[in-house]
Amino acid sequence: MAVTIRDVAHACGVHVSTVSRTFSAPQMVNAETRTRVLAAAEQLGYRPNRAARSLTTGRTGNLGLIVADLANPFFPPLIKAAQAAARAQDYHLFVADTDEDPAEEQDLVLAFSKQVDGIVLCSPRLSNKALGKLAETIPFVLVNRRMRGVPTVVMDVAHGARTAMEHLAGLGHRRVALVSGPAGSWTSGEIRRAATDMPGVETVVFGPNAPTEQGGVAVAGQIADAGVTGVLAYNDLVAIGLIEGLEQRGVRVPGDVSVIGIDDSVTGRLHRPKLTTVAMPTADAGRMAVDLLVRSMSAATVLDTHLVVRESTAPPKGSP
Amino acid sequence: MAVTIRDVAHACGVHVSTVSRTFSAPQMVNAETRTRVLAAAEQLGYRPNRAARSLTTGRTGNLGLIVADLANPFFPPLIKAAQAAARAQDYHLFVADTDEDPAEEQDLVLAFSKQVDGIVLCSPRLSNKALGKLAETIPFVLVNRRMRGVPTVVMDVAHGARTAMEHLAGLGHRRVALVSGPAGSWTSGEIRRAATDMPGVETVVFGPNAPTEQGGVAVAGQIADAGVTGVLAYNDLVAIGLIEGLEQRGVRVPGDVSVIGIDDSVTGRLHRPKLTTVAMPTADAGRMAVDLLVRSMSAATVLDTHLVVRESTAPPKGSP
Repeated sequence: MAVTIRDVAHACGVHVSTVSRTFSAPQMVNAETRTRVLAAAEQLGYRPNRAARSLTTGRTGNLGLIVADLANPFFPPLIKAAQAAARAQDYHLFVADTDEDPAEEQDLVLAFSKQVDGIVLCSPRLSNKALGKLAETIPFVLVNRRMRGVPTVVMDVAHGARTAMEHLAGLGHRRVALVSGPAGSWTSGEIRRAATDMPGVETVVFGPNAPTEQGGVAVAGQIADAGVTGVLAYNDLVAIGLIEGLEQRGVRVPGDVSVIGIDDSVTGRLHRPKLTTVAMPTADAGRMAVDLLVRSMSAATVLDTHLVVRESTAPPKGSP
Repeated sequence: MAVTIRDVAHACGVHVSTVSRTFSAPQMVNAETRTRVLAAAEQLGYRPNRAARSLTTGRTGNLGLIVADLANPFFPPLIKAAQAAARAQDYHLFVADTDEDPAEEQDLVLAFSKQVDGIVLCSPRLSNKALGKLAETIPFVLVNRRMRGVPTVVMDVAHGARTAMEHLAGLGHRRVALVSGPAGSWTSGEIRRAATDMPGVETVVFGPNAPTEQGGVAVAGQIADAGVTGVLAYNDLVAIGLIEGLEQRGVRVPGDVSVIGIDDSVTGRLHRPKLTTVAMPTADAGRMAVDLLVRSMSAATVLDTHLVVRESTAPPKGSP
């Protein structure tokens, strides 16, 4: 296995970033430390990726990550995990926020394309056609969107939505509202398909809605009048806003109406009533997206092969 | 006043980003729209900043913003406001997170210095000496740190902390705990100075602490044993963690101990009990920091002068 920057840092008892700096900005490291780091690097046979990259290929050593809304608690765990994965491979991660605006999303991909080596695009709102055009300008990996020819990490939200509907059905709810998410969201389409296909439960769909607390507050009046006893909301924020809006109308949760969110965000956990929710593997998704991106950017991915011994081989005839 | 990109967008009924793209990536805009935008730009006398910049100065048209922890609800409102201010001046904003690590902070400034034109550095953990060295590599503006010679936006948290202590004193609390923040935090120092200088109240200081929910949970045992009836916490997250930790020990809030947070974050607002807290002007700070940064990067800031007519001037002697 290749020697990593972590190995060098460990060998000379300094922080990873000190090793990184020794190669990228040696003037910022004091002479004694620099000497120690360089000696350890040489002894272990470490090749500094970023320095090598910028010298030989003009690459930046940075990755970009684009999200629809930094203020949505769904994203921070994903960002933090992506960041840790980027650092472990000696990349810096720059984050940008589109404010749920497809035009801004496109602009940010173009702006990043000159400043980073590759992009993780989370929950994009652009059409597949527009994304296909952008894919010609810079390598990217999609999170929560499927698209032919582009590496993708999706979370199985359909499974989660089915489990949520089964939970409601198991509690005896027969008429349930689905508060769907924004137009252009792959996740929202998946949830809708899964939630409207539940035997024994009638599902009424409300949407599209903004994926925010305000989106939940705004739809509360319709839900209160819909004659439903259960709700599956697009995410925890929408669920929390909905509960707020229902309570303002004297509808108690879960006394009168049960509400389920999606994400298992810290916000949902701190809320009272504590939110029943579908846990999403956001940290895994962030980490895997960065790993996929870095792998897709390298010249070639070499996968191990192994010998499978079956029945077509034997010692040569006549051997002892 | 100079014609802005918003004026052009408004004049031809398109999104700001479409105007931006017409100059930065004309191939991404359809021909009919491009023609309309260019005609409006010419008619209004609009000069595309970013395109002009990159042609004449090699600048990037991007700004960087560095925060200690994206997952802390203190930061998103600041980031969103900074982003809106950047967009209004035709800049993209890239965000990076230091994980509260001064070494990472230094690395990120260096990484950004090649990819952006200037940086907003929020609640830095680096020493003033290290920051001074970095200030030679790229223009930056500090948020919540004072430093000679560097443009700064600080929030008057000392005033807020004093008000919080007065609130506790007014309720009759005589022995109060201050749960302070991380080492290296200017804000924490300000809070401490203000909170320990309150006549009639004995303030016991606990810290430094991680500025997170976990930091609050971790200090709860000490607070429960400290014989205090009130607490001022470094921020809302610490307050929420502390309440959790106290309740696990059978100490009720506010029945047994009153707790005040700082930030007025959405997390504190959704928490039960709803958190008493010091509101911080985070959105204003984000917007003003970007405005200061952009102003400090331009070649020269030209401030208006005006004539003040008093008594030393008069018509020439003998005039009619």
